[in-house]
This record gives sequence, structure tokens and C-alpha cells, in this order.
Amino acid sequence: MSTVRGSTPRDDGFVMPAEWEEHDGTWLAWPERPDNWRLGARPAQDAYTAVATALSTHELVTVGVSDEQYPHCRTKLPPAVRVVELSTNDSWIRDMGPTFVVNRATGARRGVDWIFNAWGGLEGGPYFPWDKDERVARKVLEIEAADRYVSPFVLEGGSIDVDGDGTCLVTEECLLNANRNPDRTRGEIERNLRDHLGVDRVVWLGAGVFQDETDGHVDNLARFVAPGRVALTWTDDVDDPQYEISLDARTRLEAATDAKGRSIEVQLIPAPGPLYRTAEEASGVDSVEGTLPRREGDRLAASYVNFYIGNQVVLVPMLDPRRDDEALEIVGKLFPDREAVGIDAREILLGGGNIHCITQQVPVRPPAP
Amino acid sequence: MSTVRGSTPRDDGFVMPAEWEEHDGTWLAWPERPDNWRLGARPAQDAYTAVATALSTHELVTVGVSDEQYPHCRTKLPPAVRVVELSTNDSWIRDMGPTFVVNRATGARRGVDWIFNAWGGLEGGPYFPWDKDERVARKVLEIEAADRYVSPFVLEGGSIDVDGDGTCLVTEECLLNANRNPDRTRGEIERNLRDHLGVDRVVWLGAGVFQDETDGHVDNLARFVAPGRVALTWTDDVDDPQYEISLDARTRLEAATDAKGRSIEVQLIPAPGPLYRTAEEASGVDSVEGTLPRREGDRLAASYVNFYIGNQVVLVPMLDPRRDDEALEIVGKLFPDREAVGIDAREILLGGGNIHCITQQVPVRPPAP
Repeated sequence: MSTVRGSTPRDDGFVMPAEWEEHDGTWLAWPERPDNWRLGARPAQDAYTAVATALSTHELVTVGVSDEQYPHCRTKLPPAVRVVELSTNDSWIRDMGPTFVVNRATGARRGVDWIFNAWGGLEGGPYFPWDKDERVARKVLEIEAADRYVSPFVLEGGSIDVDGDGTCLVTEECLLNANRNPDRTRGEIERNLRDHLGVDRVVWLGAGVFQDETDGHVDNLARFVAPGRVALTWTDDVDDPQYEISLDARTRLEAATDAKGRSIEVQLIPAPGPLYRTAEEASGVDSVEGTLPRREGDRLAASYVNFYIGNQVVLVPMLDPRRDDEALEIVGKLFPDREAVGIDAREILLGGGNIHCITQQVPVRPPAP
Repeated sequence: MSTVRGSTPRDDGFVMPAEWEEHDGTWLAWPERPDNWRLGARPAQDAYTAVATALSTHELVTVGVSDEQYPHCRTKLPPAVRVVELSTNDSWIRDMGPTFVVNRATGARRGVDWIFNAWGGLEGGPYFPWDKDERVARKVLEIEAADRYVSPFVLEGGSIDVDGDGTCLVTEECLLNANRNPDRTRGEIERNLRDHLGVDRVVWLGAGVFQDETDGHVDNLARFVAPGRVALTWTDDVDDPQYEISLDARTRLEAATDAKGRSIEVQLIPAPGPLYRTAEEASGVDSVEGTLPRREGDRLAASYVNFYIGNQVVLVPMLDPRRDDEALEIVGKLFPDREAVGIDAREILLGGGNIHCITQQVPVRPPAP
């Protein structure tokens, strides 16, 4: 498929739809590496299987997997899920995958291929190399027969969140981090978002969730749930470092207006935990030099905001029996036309992210003129 | 995607269309192994690129390639070609790929996944292992989102040729070879063809092309070009071992009737050569224990019958300047609605097959009722 040269999505009339707009499908990438996922990644594979299965009733779910694990993965997943070969270094397709953009006037669909450096590369990223991950966006676009824009900026899909109506949420901790685009100014980074997502306004939050190893991806902190409405992870514990982070985000959101001039209503979602890695969980991970170690007592960057909006369901990570029911109820009310489905997601969290981080939507092509 | 259990394509009303029926696309698999393809497979890659390019104007061409060669392959091929990751042991998708079947009443399309043992496996096959090849058919069907039938017989796509109207051509040398289905009778093998291709009559030829390492695939010897019409490779040299083979095939074809009771008109196509591997060609192939050696002076199983019928072109292997023009003219006349395009194909021939062996068509879905 073609690589578009000499223009950006904005130039050509493309925008990134909101996640709640209808999907043709959702992509995942199978977790495999035993130096990140405990017990040879088998418990994580069960959680990924639950996500794929829950989505597969209402859209085409495609799971990418290595040749070596292809037969095992194909056997584990239900028949309605499509399984394709896809070599990866790890399994976070939100971040390494393409961002799909559509042209609402012509009905065309294309993809943006960002530079991927594994969340900071040699300056704080969790592993080396990431060469296979870097090829994933292009491979997904080829299978989807979509032409490709190449952004000259390092960016992960989890570090942006859009309302499909001109506004994008990001965090300074991630997008201005010296390990992403150190030679670019804030203005250049904002212009990259405007050009490649087709947005008109960027709302900057400060830090992401406490000790989030993505350097504060916004998708774990705050998410659009409708135009003018954002869900924010929250704690009332003023002694928790998360308190100041969430308070700062709330303050900024309540002071902001979106691209259409709307003020932003903030829906707080109480955070799980705090949660920590157990000794048993740490001991199941292979120790490999050069990969971020997984240690007993690590605080986990747990947040219910890392949900995924499917065609007729919202998948919400279940992480803490003391808070799960409340979180599921709040998210369910935010999406009254969808069923809120809880997915037991601790095994995904142990790997460094959650349901939104392991999914990537393929929006439908708009009706052609 | 689902594996269909408890029924065959025939039970469910599916048949294999003729190759000249309209395609949605064509699949190829990139040649890579240096112990079969000389000079690191680069000359063969040029020939494959020519095939993909010639087809890509009129149908979606998909090329499968290893992760390692993905960037190189993507760069070599024109943008209109779709490139997907696909691990293989070698590059003969006609033989390891699925056979697509359609239901003309419902408009459905599915695929048949045959057992693949690399042309005889440990009893005369050219290499070991073939585990990646064995997974190819399923992977292609997943990307095409097609449900799958599993045949319990060893079979390669190049060993069958259909007229799309109830008749299948095969050779005894291949289908009755002890290295394919030694415990199956001729009747059982014929029933497998009837069940999985939806054909009503099997026309048995004897041997395939002289020293064809596929054990005599029919697609190098004789091919339907229309219902009731077969192209046959031919030599007038009575001292060439090919003479008796082609004469026997001609005799059998002229005595046969097809599934609809038609007699079969035979169009002779003079063979190139005889052609032999040169010292230079042999020296460019890596020597690896367990892989069929490529030696100077090997007679090559060269035939113009190994053409491929695309949507608006027929690709004809160009192999011998003394005969190429005549072959191209004959094939052109056999397909008056298509352009006959010659492809310089010696590098494909050196690897053990030709244009038909490296392609696999995806027929269009019939119009739904």
C-alpha cells in the first residue's frame, strides 16, 4: 500500500475519530515475552483472550502473534477472532500500532505511522531492541489495505486521546519528555498533533498516573467519554502522590475549553488500590539483562480509566474488589448505550499497562459521498 | 476464523472456480532461502517482483514475507502490492497455500487447507523441515477472513487443475506417489478431489514433466484453458524422454470426456530447451546438508504451460529465446480477452518451479442471492 508523501492527514481532510464512533474492528498483539509476563505469559494470555472474546461478538477482532506461538494462540482464541502472523518485541498495539484517520467527506480511511522508541528507548524505556515493534504499524496498515502517513515525531497511541470533534488530550510528562522528541519545541509537538490527528485544540495536562512506566500516558489518567466530558482517575487520599497529580489534571480540565468552545465536565473515577506487585508475581518473570526488572513491592500504575470502548461494550479493567463494582457502575453510566463489562485485568497491569494499551480500533470508513 | 467440521466443500455446495474466473486477488510468498535460490535469492526476488507488478494493475496482489526481509521486500515491490508478514520454509504458495472454493448459490467463499509435506517429505522432498509452510494456508485464510476446510490428504495446489465446470486434471506420478498418501487407494484419492474441489470427474494423466522435482505436478504439464480445452507441453524430439510423457498425456486427453460429456481439444505448446543449470548458476546456491543440491548440468523442468491467468493478463514464463515468441503467441491466442505478458522466468525455474507455482488466486465471491 502507498506511503503518502508531501502532505499530512490535516492537509488531506483526515481526522482521528473518537473511540466511541463505530469500529470495523479491533487489533491486539499476543503477549509472549517471559521477561515481562510471568509464567511464560500464560496468565496474561488468558486476560488478552478475555478481551478479544468480549469484543468479538460486535466487531472483527484481529490478534497478531509470532509464527512460533501461532498454533497455540489460534487454539486459545474463539473462531470469530482473526489471527495473523505479526512479530513483535512486546504486545502494546495501542502504542506501536497505527492511528487510523478518516476523511468524512470522501469516505477514505488511512493510518498514521508514528516513530516508536519503546517509551523512551535507551533513556528509560523498558526493553531493547524494539525493531519488530517499529514495523507493526506498517504491517497492520498493509493487512487493512490502508495507505500510510509517516509522522516524523516519536509518539505512542496511548499518549493521546481525542473527542473526534477537534480536541486532543495529552500530558506534558510524556509529550515533552526529553526521551521522546528532545529537539522539538512544545509548539512543534502541538503542530504534529494538529497535522496528524486533524485536531484544532490540544489540552495539556501535567503528569500522568504515579509511576506509570510509559512516562504518564494520558490514556491511564484521563479520557474523553463524549465531547465536553472527560473521565479522570481520582483518589481522596491527600497523602498519596496520585492526589496532587489528579488534582492538577482536574484543575486544568475545568479551566479548559475544547475546540468547539465547550467547557469540559470532569467525571471522577476512584482509583483502585494502591496496588503492589507480590513476591509470587515478581518471581514468575524471567530476569533478563536490559529489560526493566519486575520486583516485589513495585507500585502498579492501576487505573480504571484504561477502559476500551467497543462497538456495543465498554471493557473495564477489574483490579481491586473494594472498588471494582463502583468503577464498573460509573463507566456504565458514562456509556448508556453500551454494556460495561468487567475484565479481570491484574495480569495485564503486571505487564505495565491495561486494556486500552493492548487494543487499537479500526474505525469504519465514513459513508462515501 | 472457523474450521468447518463434519462436512466437505461438496456437502456444502462449494466448488473450486477455474483460474480464468475473476479474482479478488493473487498471493505470492517471497523467495528467501539461499540454499535454494542463488545469490541470496536476489535474482529470484526480481522475477517475483516482475510477476507481482504485472498482476497488480488488475487485482490486489498480496506478498507474504518473513519479518527479517519485510522492509527490503516492501521497498522492492510497488505500492499497489500488499505486503504481509508470513513465515515460510520456501516460496511456493501454489502448493502450500489454500485452495479457495466458492458457493455459487450463496455467494460464500471458503478455503481448503491440505496436508503439506514438501513434495514427498523425507522420501524425496527437497528440504526439511516444512513446519512454517504447513501453517501458510491457515494464515492466508485468516487474513482473507475465510472459513477453512481441512482435507485429511497430502496434496499440493500445483498437482490439480480444474475447469470450474466439474472436471479436474491430475497425474498418477504425483497423486499416486508413495510419498504422498501411501495408505490411500486411487478411489479414495479421487473421492478426496470430488469432496474438496466439488468436481464430478477426474481425468488422470500419467507422468509429469521429465525430472520435475514435484513428482510430476500437472500444472507444469497440462492445463485447462477453457472447458473442453487443454494446453499441453510438447516436444517433437522422439529421443527426448519428454516425448513419451507428452504423447501419453495427449493420448489420454484425446480419449477422455469431461464432467459435462465434452471431448477435450488439446493445444500443443512446444517446450523450451532442453535447458540445463550452468556452473555459475549452481555455484551461487548455498550448500546445506538436507537440502536438495543444485548441480551444474541438472536438467530443468522447463515448460511454458506453467503460466498464470490473471484478471486481464496471462503471465507466461520466458525461458528460451528460440521458443519464447511462439509460446507467447500461442498462449495469447488461447486467451483472446487477455494480454499475454512474457516474464523473464529462468530464475524461478532454477528454484524448481515457475510462475504458476508461485501464485495462488483468490476468486471473487459469487453474487449473493
